[in-house]
Amino acid sequence: MKKFLNDVDDMLSESLRGFGAAQADIVAVHDDPMFVTRAAPRRDKVALISGGGSGHEPLHAGFVGTGMLDAACPGQVFTSPTPDQMMAAAEAVASDAGVLWIVKNYSGDVMNFEMAQEMVDGSQSLLVNDDVAVEDSTYTAGRRGVAGTLIVEKIVGAAAEEGAGLDACVALGNRVIAATRSFGVALTSCTVPAAGTPTFDIGDNEIEMGVGIHGEPGRHREPLGTADAIAGQMMEAILSDLAPAAGGKVLFLVNGFGGTPLMELDLMYGAGAKLLSDHGLTFSRSLVGNYVTSLEMAGCSFTVTALDDEMTRLWDAPVHTAALRWGC
Amino acid sequence: MKKFLNDVDDMLSESLRGFGAAQADIVAVHDDPMFVTRAAPRRDKVALISGGGSGHEPLHAGFVGTGMLDAACPGQVFTSPTPDQMMAAAEAVASDAGVLWIVKNYSGDVMNFEMAQEMVDGSQSLLVNDDVAVEDSTYTAGRRGVAGTLIVEKIVGAAAEEGAGLDACVALGNRVIAATRSFGVALTSCTVPAAGTPTFDIGDNEIEMGVGIHGEPGRHREPLGTADAIAGQMMEAILSDLAPAAGGKVLFLVNGFGGTPLMELDLMYGAGAKLLSDHGLTFSRSLVGNYVTSLEMAGCSFTVTALDDEMTRLWDAPVHTAALRWGC
Repeated sequence: MKKFLNDVDDMLSESLRGFGAAQADIVAVHDDPMFVTRAAPRRDKVALISGGGSGHEPLHAGFVGTGMLDAACPGQVFTSPTPDQMMAAAEAVASDAGVLWIVKNYSGDVMNFEMAQEMVDGSQSLLVNDDVAVEDSTYTAGRRGVAGTLIVEKIVGAAAEEGAGLDACVALGNRVIAATRSFGVALTSCTVPAAGTPTFDIGDNEIEMGVGIHGEPGRHREPLGTADAIAGQMMEAILSDLAPAAGGKVLFLVNGFGGTPLMELDLMYGAGAKLLSDHGLTFSRSLVGNYVTSLEMAGCSFTVTALDDEMTRLWDAPVHTAALRWGC
Repeated sequence: MKKFLNDVDDMLSESLRGFGAAQADIVAVHDDPMFVTRAAPRRDKVALISGGGSGHEPLHAGFVGTGMLDAACPGQVFTSPTPDQMMAAAEAVASDAGVLWIVKNYSGDVMNFEMAQEMVDGSQSLLVNDDVAVEDSTYTAGRRGVAGTLIVEKIVGAAAEEGAGLDACVALGNRVIAATRSFGVALTSCTVPAAGTPTFDIGDNEIEMGVGIHGEPGRHREPLGTADAIAGQMMEAILSDLAPAAGGKVLFLVNGFGGTPLMELDLMYGAGAKLLSDHGLTFSRSLVGNYVTSLEMAGCSFTVTALDDEMTRLWDAPVHTAALRWGC
């Protein structure tokens, strides 16, 4: 294992301290228990709190800030955060407007966020399950939550920033979830620091179609084909499930898993965008980059959200976080 | 070689078309010869044009836009762009205010940009050579130009956007170059698509200290040490050469080479920032991410710029490019 670290046991806390130092104008990193809040929390709005295992950076702490999350709870690598982290985050950022937990659909996350939800009166949850690849997986009952999470966090975050109430945020979030689908592929494995060896073996000419963001198996393996052929399978899986209205506008996110160069992500964006056009869809909003990663895994995912006017307006609204920033 | 591509010969043009489609509000991608301009060029200011071999994305095309570059000329992977690309870019964006070429110090780039400079009357150049690792290298006479280039492009870009004249931009750029030093390390090699095999071999427990952004050799190899020890060597190399005034303010950039997770870059930021503090310096501006990459190479570089008030103000000025965006 070749990584920049001092001691595996300190890696997460040292990384978060570095993140906090680099982004001190945006976030504050809290220890014991560990959570991240905005540098200047606003306690007059619905508090959006997310979290999950680390190793997916910039998700979630990189999306804490104006127009997006109020707090994030990072677990150990690929491990759910604990309810005490969630409770401490809620205490730091919650107001009378209520708390909304944004949860990716993994069994550990679901269980721990449910405990937190029970302990914070009147709080509610959004469960993101955008991955069309498989119905159940290593860590999941039902579909996995993957890169679509950032779209939920951005759009609901903008609504909450404008003063939308808790019920309205829940309804909007569920609309975004219902309009969002993802599919990922992997060319190489990642290596969890505490494990020290690759999560899975994959042949020199193989690709895992439908991989999860922890390296969980997808639908099948096959010989590595052309970018166009891979993009075709990814987009077919998404569009056959999402079935967007012809002539509709979509947000198209090409998300890198950490080890794939931007040059290749841009190429995959071009391949996917052509397929959207061929389906009579307009890619009216776009995002390309490493946003929901799997450590250094080579691979990428496509995410498509069928946009309505309100979702588009809220996507465009100002955001100021470490990883997404526009309009301010 | 495992990469997302259709045909190696088309990789660059397909990638640029995808980039252009994803960033259509910011850039326009031109074919034959290939160059990238702002979507809406401003022809009333000094035109900043950069370029270099591809494979370092988002450098340079990702820095085209308001407040930064007017155009970028991408060469093939790790290969200089040609003078015809540069001339076409100049024709598309130049005004009476003149053209400023921003060139990284590699022999091929220097030769080709010199030819372009001779063909565009009154144009001038900035030669970036921020890498303190080695004096001469595989492709270089003198020090290599690396991640400091984006700092030059950002600060001079802001000045040009405000209406600074050509001579003032040159003087400012040379001040930024004189105040900027970088040092990089690699844990793994990258693979140039046209070559198909890794650029260099490196042992399972080795690190290349002082690596270049094409995988060129640095100062030496050694067994992989702790992050703190690596950061210590990197910062010592930079600060002993830069010799910033005690109590000074610096910009600290931790740049990933493409294959290193953000979690590790944040950890390295923390390690480097502590060393800056120990030297009595204040890291008053920060940037962490994959900005000047070497395809999928695992590794990172530190860049330190000793800031003055004008440089700080221009760094903070609005920028709207694919890869850097704030204030607009």
